[in-house]
Amino acid sequence: MAPRVSERAGIAPFHVREVMKAAGERAAAGGDVLHLEVGQPATGAPEPVVEAAARALREGPLHYTDADGLPALRLRIARWYRERYALDVDPTRVVVTTGASGACVLAFLACFEVGAPVAVARPGYPCYRNILTALGCAVVDLPVTAETRFQPGPGHVAAARGSLGDEPLAGVVVASPSNPTGTVLDRTSLADLAEACRTGDTWLLSDEIYHGITYDEPATSVLAVDDAAVVIASFSKYFSMTGWRLGWLVVPPELVIPVERLAQNLTVAPPTLPQQAGIAAFDAVDELDGHVARYAANRGVLLDGLRQAGFDRIAPADGAFYLWVDVSAWTDDSQALCAEWLADLGVAVTPGIDFDPVDGHRFVRFSFAGATEDMAEATRRLAGWTADHPSRHAG
Amino acid sequence: MAPRVSERAGIAPFHVREVMKAAGERAAAGGDVLHLEVGQPATGAPEPVVEAAARALREGPLHYTDADGLPALRLRIARWYRERYALDVDPTRVVVTTGASGACVLAFLACFEVGAPVAVARPGYPCYRNILTALGCAVVDLPVTAETRFQPGPGHVAAARGSLGDEPLAGVVVASPSNPTGTVLDRTSLADLAEACRTGDTWLLSDEIYHGITYDEPATSVLAVDDAAVVIASFSKYFSMTGWRLGWLVVPPELVIPVERLAQNLTVAPPTLPQQAGIAAFDAVDELDGHVARYAANRGVLLDGLRQAGFDRIAPADGAFYLWVDVSAWTDDSQALCAEWLADLGVAVTPGIDFDPVDGHRFVRFSFAGATEDMAEATRRLAGWTADHPSRHAG
Repeated sequence: MAPRVSERAGIAPFHVREVMKAAGERAAAGGDVLHLEVGQPATGAPEPVVEAAARALREGPLHYTDADGLPALRLRIARWYRERYALDVDPTRVVVTTGASGACVLAFLACFEVGAPVAVARPGYPCYRNILTALGCAVVDLPVTAETRFQPGPGHVAAARGSLGDEPLAGVVVASPSNPTGTVLDRTSLADLAEACRTGDTWLLSDEIYHGITYDEPATSVLAVDDAAVVIASFSKYFSMTGWRLGWLVVPPELVIPVERLAQNLTVAPPTLPQQAGIAAFDAVDELDGHVARYAANRGVLLDGLRQAGFDRIAPADGAFYLWVDVSAWTDDSQALCAEWLADLGVAVTPGIDFDPVDGHRFVRFSFAGATEDMAEATRRLAGWTADHPSRHAG
Repeated sequence: MAPRVSERAGIAPFHVREVMKAAGERAAAGGDVLHLEVGQPATGAPEPVVEAAARALREGPLHYTDADGLPALRLRIARWYRERYALDVDPTRVVVTTGASGACVLAFLACFEVGAPVAVARPGYPCYRNILTALGCAVVDLPVTAETRFQPGPGHVAAARGSLGDEPLAGVVVASPSNPTGTVLDRTSLADLAEACRTGDTWLLSDEIYHGITYDEPATSVLAVDDAAVVIASFSKYFSMTGWRLGWLVVPPELVIPVERLAQNLTVAPPTLPQQAGIAAFDAVDELDGHVARYAANRGVLLDGLRQAGFDRIAPADGAFYLWVDVSAWTDDSQALCAEWLADLGVAVTPGIDFDPVDGHRFVRFSFAGATEDMAEATRRLAGWTADHPSRHAG
């Protein structure tokens, strides 16, 4: 006999790992691979961040910071809300975290009891549902479709409440821009959602990690419409600092001390060097906006190329660096399609079931965080493929 | 109305924070403070680690690593077990984590369901009980005393099981050397404990973050007596890398995939630069053993000085850099005593209730991670204090 692995560790695997593994094997065997599966910037941290890190490293030693982060960084983040959003955020409400992942864990624990029902969009970032499940919460689906630009609204919240009977809905987690769809909740939609949450004593958590990467209007922060909401943010995307593992929360005053105590116990503190260096990231907007210009170019190339190749059911990619593409005209098994495209075309994309366990078999996610020439080449190959594989809907 | 903060965020505060805050205010006002409250090395990372970090920073970019860590680091950690412990550990069983804190969260989630009873020593590191509570587990006390060198044995495990009726005990978390007591579980004691756990299908988790910092025999890893146990380890103490936030787990094979999936979802990955640099830490043992020599000197000075000052009920500090001192001859409120010592003597120590919510009011924890001259000066001042404050037991 031996002790048993917990059931709550029985999390669904990321199917993209299989794609990445196969892509790696293909590359190792000398084959070419166009990486449209990877969800991180190809670039590194902005130059001033690297310089600040080198300086902090020389000065050392890197001791623990406060559990809620370096005061200077919390101040700088608060100032960012004034600069970018014209919003006043008290720095005491800013909690620095170990990536947005760490932010999610702390926020979910502070807001949700064991057993609490928490609603997430489907399709959506799979870690929300997996973290919530690991923490003992009950995940409630908000099935969103192209009809609402793949974002939830008050109707979805009402339907989720209806499914719970007398039990109150503890929280709603949204992402704008969304991964995998790239769609944005505009100010009115955010306000409607906030109102729907408020009337039911439901926490609204807004994942804003793709803010800064938008192609039309800048994204609205939930703080512009609801001071009681929780913001999840990150240095990984716009600030191009994935491996540094740095993020933050903005929380309402009543969550400040609970989140700080949770952070003390679950983390001691976020990593020190990224915090010291991260302060410089907010003054590197020219370099960072250059990355966004490249994403915009990639997006144009990929959207045009995919449409020409016959893929015309694509979510409106307002932001982030993803296209959510309906491939049901060709398959009911997008995971098999991803394997086929990689094997036959050298094009790596992510199967939709990573983001939507129910309907994801009809979708794939393209990432355009990579090189522009890879986008162009991928669409050329896919056009060749669709020429050989007519749409099942074709006439 | 507004949504409510979760009950599980209602974690006990660290009372040492009050001491640290008061110490900071005293220092800011020009007063001197001897820091015997701080639980981290005063030193920074070893020189080869800093050099490797500077190199990795120049080479960049710092992208995500695998969720279970850089393969090269996992290999190096496995080799460390051969070098230091003469143990063969398969590198696939090593999972790199964001500090030992991150290791605890992942291991607890992988091993324990919501509601599962998990036993921890009292006194013990407060974060075990606080993390377990936040994750929905039921903490069971193992009240340990000077009689068993403040370490649990099969008798404690049996008593814990007895208190649960039919419900099985899901786990036992031990620390050797222990924080706050510094006491070590020797090989026989560890084997007895492992046997007691095995016969009840109880996970045994061994926190070995203070390994390397011992003053007589090197500490035995639980892996020497039980391959099914889980090891929690860290770069923060012996390797002197607190702010880098790097640790690891060694898990039995059946936990490898569950822990990896939890890590993917809860963390994405540990911070990249510390992982790249941390590989060099294992070849810096001369520098690191120099720190241990200083701790040993501090320990001698502090033990002698405290005994001369009249404090003679001190746990045998086999390792770590703490003394757990029974102050019941002077007070029933060690928190007030800590405040008094700081205010009147400028000596900062940690109140026992941080580690033992029941009996901690009779204890304080001295840390000797600081400067040797501070240890000597603190004991001189405390000798003056005990001269004015005779033991209540005297006479």
